[in-house]
Amino acid sequence: MALNVYLSGEIHTDWRDQIIAGADGLDVAFTAPVTDHDASDDCGVAILGAEPDKFWHDRKGASMNAIRTRKAIADADVVVVRFGEKYRQWNAAFDAGYAAALGKSLIVLHGPDHAHALKEVDAAALAVAQEPRQVVEILRYVLTGALPG
Amino acid sequence: MALNVYLSGEIHTDWRDQIIAGADGLDVAFTAPVTDHDASDDCGVAILGAEPDKFWHDRKGASMNAIRTRKAIADADVVVVRFGEKYRQWNAAFDAGYAAALGKSLIVLHGPDHAHALKEVDAAALAVAQEPRQVVEILRYVLTGALPG
Amino acid sequence: MALNVYLSGEIHTDWRDQIIAGADGLDVAFTAPVTDHDASDDCGVAILGAEPDKFWHDRKGASMNAIRTRKAIADADVVVVRFGEKYRQWNAAFDAGYAAALGKSLIVLHGPDHAHALKEVDAAALAVAQEPRQVVEILRYVLTGALPG
Amino acid sequence: MALNVYLSGEIHTDWRDQIIAGADGLDVAFTAPVTDHDASDDCGVAILGAEPDKFWHDRKGASMNAIRTRKAIADADVVVVRFGEKYRQWNAAFDAGYAAALGKSLIVLHGPDHAHALKEVDAAALAVAQEPRQVVEILRYVLTGALPG
Amino acid sequence: MALNVYLSGEIHTDWRDQIIAGADGLDVAFTAPVTDHDASDDCGVAILGAEPDKFWHDRKGASMNAIRTRKAIADADVVVVRFGEKYRQWNAAFDAGYAAALGKSLIVLHGPDHAHALKEVDAAALAVAQEPRQVVEILRYVLTGALPG
Amino acid sequence: MALNVYLSGEIHTDWRDQIIAGADGLDVAFTAPVTDHDASDDCGVAILGAEPDKFWHDRKGASMNAIRTRKAIADADVVVVRFGEKYRQWNAAFDAGYAAALGKSLIVLHGPDHAHALKEVDAAALAVAQEPRQVVEILRYVLTGALPG
Amino acid sequence: MALNVYLSGEIHTDWRDQIIAGADGLDVAFTAPVTDHDASDDCGVAILGAEPDKFWHDRKGASMNAIRTRKAIADADVVVVRFGEKYRQWNAAFDAGYAAALGKSLIVLHGPDHAHALKEVDAAALAVAQEPRQVVEILRYVLTGALPG
Amino acid sequence: MALNVYLSGEIHTDWRDQIIAGADGLDVAFTAPVTDHDASDDCGVAILGAEPDKFWHDRKGASMNAIRTRKAIADADVVVVRFGEKYRQWNAAFDAGYAAALGKSLIVLHGPDHAHALKEVDAAALAVAQEPRQVVEILRYVLTGALPG
Repeated sequence: MALNVYLSGEIHTDWRDQIIAGADGLDVAFTAPVTDHDASDDCGVAILGAEPDKFWHDRKGASMNAIRTRKAIADADVVVVRFGEKYRQWNAAFDAGYAAALGKSLIVLHGPDHAHALKEVDAAALAVAQEPRQVVEILRYVLTGALPG
Repeated sequence: MALNVYLSGEIHTDWRDQIIAGADGLDVAFTAPVTDHDASDDCGVAILGAEPDKFWHDRKGASMNAIRTRKAIADADVVVVRFGEKYRQWNAAFDAGYAAALGKSLIVLHGPDHAHALKEVDAAALAVAQEPRQVVEILRYVLTGALPG
Repeated sequence: MALNVYLSGEIHTDWRDQIIAGADGLDVAFTAPVTDHDASDDCGVAILGAEPDKFWHDRKGASMNAIRTRKAIADADVVVVRFGEKYRQWNAAFDAGYAAALGKSLIVLHGPDHAHALKEVDAAALAVAQEPRQVVEILRYVLTGALPG
Repeated sequence: MALNVYLSGEIHTDWRDQIIAGADGLDVAFTAPVTDHDASDDCGVAILGAEPDKFWHDRKGASMNAIRTRKAIADADVVVVRFGEKYRQWNAAFDAGYAAALGKSLIVLHGPDHAHALKEVDAAALAVAQEPRQVVEILRYVLTGALPG
Repeated sequence: MALNVYLSGEIHTDWRDQIIAGADGLDVAFTAPVTDHDASDDCGVAILGAEPDKFWHDRKGASMNAIRTRKAIADADVVVVRFGEKYRQWNAAFDAGYAAALGKSLIVLHGPDHAHALKEVDAAALAVAQEPRQVVEILRYVLTGALPG
Repeated sequence: MALNVYLSGEIHTDWRDQIIAGADGLDVAFTAPVTDHDASDDCGVAILGAEPDKFWHDRKGASMNAIRTRKAIADADVVVVRFGEKYRQWNAAFDAGYAAALGKSLIVLHGPDHAHALKEVDAAALAVAQEPRQVVEILRYVLTGALPG
Repeated sequence: MALNVYLSGEIHTDWRDQIIAGADGLDVAFTAPVTDHDASDDCGVAILGAEPDKFWHDRKGASMNAIRTRKAIADADVVVVRFGEKYRQWNAAFDAGYAAALGKSLIVLHGPDHAHALKEVDAAALAVAQEPRQVVEILRYVLTGALPG
Repeated sequence: MALNVYLSGEIHTDWRDQIIAGADGLDVAFTAPVTDHDASDDCGVAILGAEPDKFWHDRKGASMNAIRTRKAIADADVVVVRFGEKYRQWNAAFDAGYAAALGKSLIVLHGPDHAHALKEVDAAALAVAQEPRQVVEILRYVLTGALPG
């Protein structure tokens, strides 16, 4: 068995790198959104032309990013969604809902103080983790049956 | 043509009542989540037994609410998702993603200061409104072809 | 058996009225796009606010009209697509492709001089008619087994 | 991530070659319809026997081409539809509708003077480009996160 | 519980009438193809114009009948396919395969001497009956739990 | 909102009657398998003819019952599966898996001593109840928002 | 582009060999049912034990063959169904219906004297050929755009 | 043709090893649940933290195992479900129902004394075997057409 895993959500810490490094040697192919914040915000106008109105500036970028996101979620067996300490992160919750409706196995990753606010997202998940290390351990267990320690 | 419309999201203002009242006379059937905050939080333990751990208290409730939410979204032609001024509202974004993945027509309702943070959600929508009145006007136009004024 | 029939395409002649009148007494429910050209073009900005750029003016309107169109096609058993003498009518061909991909029974209605240009659309159809009267006769036959004359 | 990209529409200019050449080095597999106009028109009768009636001559050919087109669209992650300056190009709009109904990421490529006539098609797309170069830039960004310049 | 039942296949005996009469009082809605052999053969050309080539004469008719057949099978909970003593009846077997692929509950009705030739069709069925009376008894049991006698 | 609820599983106690009586006044339509044990076992041979081999006797009956079961599950919004004290009840677990794969909201009903053996089934459910009364309370809450007491 | 092609139907002539040989060099992977008539008839009882009743003997075999057939059709891009001169060949028509319902591209191969009896099957096909050579030419054209001669 | 085969059910005998060894040389990729009973029971708490309540201890584990199970069943062409002599094995029946609803080819493996209790599961299967050796023979026949002996 091999797994395609999409790493959605928070882009300001190195949690993706931790998971990818930790999963070294496992048969996992990772995908992720573009995590360069400026590129992600400006891709639409950079390629298709400037927009004076910020709303349409954002629309062009968000739609272009959706080409990547939809492909990645559609191909994923597992979608990991990370909620960090800052910002609204509505796109992370949107991805979680999108993945859930497609029947993807969902792993949610967040600190305990967000538990109540994320209870609907957590309830759609097959695992709720607090640390990137735990996501690696889940992937290892799912693929090999081996438990940590 | 008749429409089933699910009204998702913020539960602390009367936006649902405004839309339902405004749509009086149109062939629309509205559904909504349970909007009694306490009942929504505690339904799981009230019916299935107390949980000492808040995480599972929340899980029982969120899962029970999902019976209603999934049915309502599955039956909906249009899903309206309202983002208010307060709280994280991740369940609203989750519903938006869930509805988008099912191919539902999505209308997002929020103030202009949330536009950037909601750009991915807005990009999945067929209309982005700021006022409940506009949602009523959309429903009227879709059903009858009549424009306001 | 009852049929839901969506009447897509050309909006400058009375072909829809002819079909609806001809089908009087048959168990058919007809739907159609908004056929008021100005309302259809301007609905988005009329409800959601003006756009200085015609491209986004059109986008707002086309997206709003899609709420109606998608619902109507999704509910339809039969999609009739009429190509007239004038204009590009790309939205008619788009609807035909959309309906074909969903497995809807497609009836195409056009004059003989468009036959070559519409050969891919016709090849996806279960009937190619030249006159609205023929569409009525098809619906009568499908529902009752009765042939004209 | 790798992408399957179907290049639909206009067959009289070298836009496909430009995109394929520009995407050299990217992990993209391109497909396209048969772009030899005569072969595309006559394939049906050339293989399955002549038809005295042009309508059935066209039907045989269009159906045979559909074997290729349906396979290509079904396998595609991204469908690019090019509208040129000449002809009705209803099959391009049909492909766009077909792809949209299947949930494919749609990129539309056309000059600004077609914008109003294509507003429904554009509204179903995740990007509207004017130049083949922009399509290449979108594909590069989607796959690598790199922006032009 | 109510059932939609499509009665496919042989059109030269009164087996449909026997089933419909026998099911009187049960909550069943029956559909069937057009069983007037001449109308079924000639509907296409009668409505859409004569064809000198019998192959296209047949194509026009078969395609038009498919509007009815597809709708009826799509709406059916149960598809009954009757194979009689005469003719090839390939359209009956085609309907059976079509229904099986859609996950419809299939009941096959034929005499014992066809059992070996129909073994693949029978293997896809939930019941294989020899008499119309048995089909009625199945429908009564499924709806009410009552067995004959 | 109205709910279709399928009551699967154990047929030797009156739990279905308790739920149906308790839900009096709620907008719920209940379905159930044939609960007459003998009729359920013998329906196949009673209608389609005796089988000397018990294996095929059972096959004929189980297939005939599947006509009812599949229809009921396909139409259900909620599937309640009851596991009692006796017998293997593999068909109950089969129904639960079948319903889960179709994305139905699953409520499992069993005593605490079966919890470990049913952990995979419970994990696919949105609620795990011990008493029929709790199922009624869930349905009332889902439909009306009202909690017990 | 590569094609998976399932060769269904008549097993008494070498038409499959002709197509496979003719397609040498094309990027096509062919599948077919087990074409050893005796093995196909007896596989069920040979592996799972004898049945005194020919009906169940056939059932065991047909069900076992369905494991192969369903896999092959599910994986196929193109399903070629050959109707020969002899026997009822209901399983060929069943496969054609099954493939059509799944949206597979269907090519039907038969002599002209079967055209009327196969009109419903032909109407669901994208090509109707009379000779295996024509099927090869279709596959070559679909994959390479090259026409014969 | 190659097959993905998921081996579900009983984990206390070496039936999986027998099948895998017997299928040596065939183009089959096997998957299975984690068959280390303790790891399977405790994976959730071992990775995500202890739970004082056995119910949630089990829930965490069962959900984590579902990541593997769902992936394996989704990818499978054939699902073999083994029922042994001991325990309730409701998860095996659940997997069988889940696989059946997804249209997977189901092979059930059990001794004759379980036949009556498993009649609904058997009726959804394409083969009912008693020995692992028979499963190997089925796979060999399906892939190569060769019968034993």
